Amino acid sequence: MRELYPRTGKAYAIGVTGPPGVGKSSLIAALVRAERERGRSVGVISVDPSSPFSQGALLGDRIRLIDHFLDPEVFIRSMGTRGHLGGLAEATLQALVLLDAAGKDVVFLETVGTGQSEVEVIRIADTTLLVLMPGSGDSVQALKAGIMEVPDAIAINKMDHAGAKAMLSDVRSMLALDQRPDRGPQVPVFLTDAVRGEGVPALVEALDARLAGLRADGELERRRGANLAAEVFTLASSRARAHLEASVAGDDELRSVLERVERRELDPLSAVDEILRRVFRITDG
Amino acid sequence: MRELYPRTGKAYAIGVTGPPGVGKSSLIAALVRAERERGRSVGVISVDPSSPFSQGALLGDRIRLIDHFLDPEVFIRSMGTRGHLGGLAEATLQALVLLDAAGKDVVFLETVGTGQSEVEVIRIADTTLLVLMPGSGDSVQALKAGIMEVPDAIAINKMDHAGAKAMLSDVRSMLALDQRPDRGPQVPVFLTDAVRGEGVPALVEALDARLAGLRADGELERRRGANLAAEVFTLASSRARAHLEASVAGDDELRSVLERVERRELDPLSAVDEILRRVFRITDG
Repeated sequence: MRELYPRTGKAYAIGVTGPPGVGKSSLIAALVRAERERGRSVGVISVDPSSPFSQGALLGDRIRLIDHFLDPEVFIRSMGTRGHLGGLAEATLQALVLLDAAGKDVVFLETVGTGQSEVEVIRIADTTLLVLMPGSGDSVQALKAGIMEVPDAIAINKMDHAGAKAMLSDVRSMLALDQRPDRGPQVPVFLTDAVRGEGVPALVEALDARLAGLRADGELERRRGANLAAEVFTLASSRARAHLEASVAGDDELRSVLERVERRELDPLSAVDEILRRVFRITDG
Repeated sequence: MRELYPRTGKAYAIGVTGPPGVGKSSLIAALVRAERERGRSVGVISVDPSSPFSQGALLGDRIRLIDHFLDPEVFIRSMGTRGHLGGLAEATLQALVLLDAAGKDVVFLETVGTGQSEVEVIRIADTTLLVLMPGSGDSVQALKAGIMEVPDAIAINKMDHAGAKAMLSDVRSMLALDQRPDRGPQVPVFLTDAVRGEGVPALVEALDARLAGLRADGELERRRGANLAAEVFTLASSRARAHLEASVAGDDELRSVLERVERRELDPLSAVDEILRRVFRITDG
């Protein structure tokens, strides 16, 4: 990491998120093809959910990427979400640094879902693409309600689906509601069909234009700086939590603090104070 | 907190989650009415999203609860998600402790969305109810993919909507896929109409039965203990993060560590090590 990091900053990191089943992997496969046609080398970091159910459908999605398995200019890495959230953000960052230092021109960071954990994982991306499909109503509602962060671009995949056009106008009128003073440029919305590749060239052009725009006004470096600082905080607090857990596991007195909470002899906030004081010598709350 | 906590443990805390717009608030209003008919006092802690867009629709939802504003046995508290995640989990915990100690029989914890942050907030609930409506496809997919934790009960609201029955069988077949050895009892699924109150008595009975079941085999105390221990960790690491941010803000040397990361002179993981060493004296990574 120490040796590779100074060599990074050349790759364009594109975060791709959206609910499961909308065809993110297929769309990424189509984007990879389009990037390869433009002579660019590509990395794909795919963060898989750890499912208690059958993973059949998700693995099936992934198969779309098989077209690119034999292309030495395309590197694909899947990572599970098992284990700790911070751990995954850290692993994703490491993979991105490696692919960037290795000279990949574009790196796609794919996450499933649209919650806080996905934001943590793809916060390091330069730009984010939200993939939806007609019928995936939660996401549009979550975007409208401000629960989901506003992406830099939106693709409505499976454009032949009845209701694709209705969703397009839904999403557009939702975006028009955004009255924040610090909102970025107009978020472009695309209708795509990942399998046929329709709408994909326009999407690639928009992603390219976004990068050019970010570069032109120095926003790219500012954004990367802010993203990295936030990432450092996330990783540090995740490590602090791991340290906390290890400390409690290995310390009878700390374990007894938790047991006293469970027996309702000690309230949870006093327990937090006591644990922080013992483990980190923090006393300021 | 110190004085109130020993008096808690009597309230039944029910977490209610689901995507925005499915009618969670209306359903909670109907549940509150049903609980009041059974002579129980009720608390509602409603965690609102902080929207960059218009909040009209959400406020409109909340108005359903107005029926109960004049009932002294019903206490309703809304909290925004602005500010820090850990801060919200902490505020929610405090509100729950207060309502529990005040003698409320049932406390509903409402969160919008289904991501990691919602899980953190309602982890302290004794049981969780997921509210869906026909068309809210993301959630079902997220549940299937294992991104969302499996709830204790599911209500499909707006049961008159075309597609309600299809969703019911969708959700049921998805639940049948759950082959985890540690899965709990069969998750009951209900069709409800919050506005007319249809399906609500059956839902209340199921929630009551769930509590009785948890109590019967000692699972309630185990679950509460585990939830509280997890909550203490979450709050402690969130405080550690706040301490970290305050330390960096007030310390030129630590700020310069971040600036070196931004200039790519120092890699993020070395920065994490250095910050943890300086702020918490952690050296074990």
